[in-house]
Amino acid sequence: MTHRRPVPLEKSYRLLNHGPTVLVSAAHGGQRNIMAAAWAMPLDFQPPKVAVVLDKSTWTRQLLEASGTFVLNVPVVAQADIVQTVGNTSGKELDKFAAYGLETFTGEQVDAPLLEGCAAWLECRLLPEPHNQGQYDLFVAEVVSAQADERVFRDGHWDFAGHDQLRTLHHVAGGHFLVIGDGIDGKMIG
Amino acid sequence: MTHRRPVPLEKSYRLLNHGPTVLVSAAHGGQRNIMAAAWAMPLDFQPPKVAVVLDKSTWTRQLLEASGTFVLNVPVVAQADIVQTVGNTSGKELDKFAAYGLETFTGEQVDAPLLEGCAAWLECRLLPEPHNQGQYDLFVAEVVSAQADERVFRDGHWDFAGHDQLRTLHHVAGGHFLVIGDGIDGKMIG
Repeated sequence: MTHRRPVPLEKSYRLLNHGPTVLVSAAHGGQRNIMAAAWAMPLDFQPPKVAVVLDKSTWTRQLLEASGTFVLNVPVVAQADIVQTVGNTSGKELDKFAAYGLETFTGEQVDAPLLEGCAAWLECRLLPEPHNQGQYDLFVAEVVSAQADERVFRDGHWDFAGHDQLRTLHHVAGGHFLVIGDGIDGKMIG
Repeated sequence: MTHRRPVPLEKSYRLLNHGPTVLVSAAHGGQRNIMAAAWAMPLDFQPPKVAVVLDKSTWTRQLLEASGTFVLNVPVVAQADIVQTVGNTSGKELDKFAAYGLETFTGEQVDAPLLEGCAAWLECRLLPEPHNQGQYDLFVAEVVSAQADERVFRDGHWDFAGHDQLRTLHHVAGGHFLVIGDGIDGKMIG
């Protein structure tokens, strides 16, 4: 039984708002790839947009530039080795999905594969910005569909209590991640 | 005694790499302000660059557009009420530093005030990008100086063990934050 549930587009920024490391997947012309990216963030609420940095050397970037679409998958503690591995291998030489036994499912709007076992998924349509892409390796996109695992994201809020293996990963450097913790509420002063 | 130590510029991206919510401070012409921003990320390693989203309505944006400089302060659990408060009040009407008793210190490179009690500080020089600023409220800047609290950031790595009040905040929505947890290492598969 799947725990995936649709997330309303106007709430989809909350899937990235706390700054998780993401896996970017793309597909074009019968080829597919997936890579890790720590530099991703929301860029607008409605319509929801995202920004993500993708190095020129990456095969995923070539695929998403060709297809104009991609997926941001939000990986979890149980997938730390997957994140480290797909973040340090090139998809030009091998199909990472086959090589590492990664299971995928089909998105609602785009051709890129969605990775099983993640906490959330944002399907994105590229908004071409040649200057940003060339100068800063920065890609801007509109979120066209979003889903999340209802065990940890419900009613527009993350709650990881009791699901430590589904906590999001926040990369520091060199395969070292910080794991997201529990919540606190800020109150207005005065 | 201060726990602030300089962070080498080439390691400064690690202060933001795990996706904390930041406080953006700016000063110009004898005026100063500070606001919260969840949408900030590294954009390059060396020279280090950052990207941050700042709504057109904000006074901080007007100050930093005028001065060309700003600071990204990385706030902590002990400051959750400060983050919520400066994120929901306008500095056009009052000096938030005076109104909320916020202590500051002077940066190495820029005029914007640095907020005492944070875990890290990145002094930034704006790289003007009129299209991004107008179209996406997106600001790009070079990091020209960086500092961190040595109790939680040493040798280029975060380690919050024993310092729960100094853990970084990761905003979800409406003043609800997730607190960063401890570390795990991803290993290469195969």
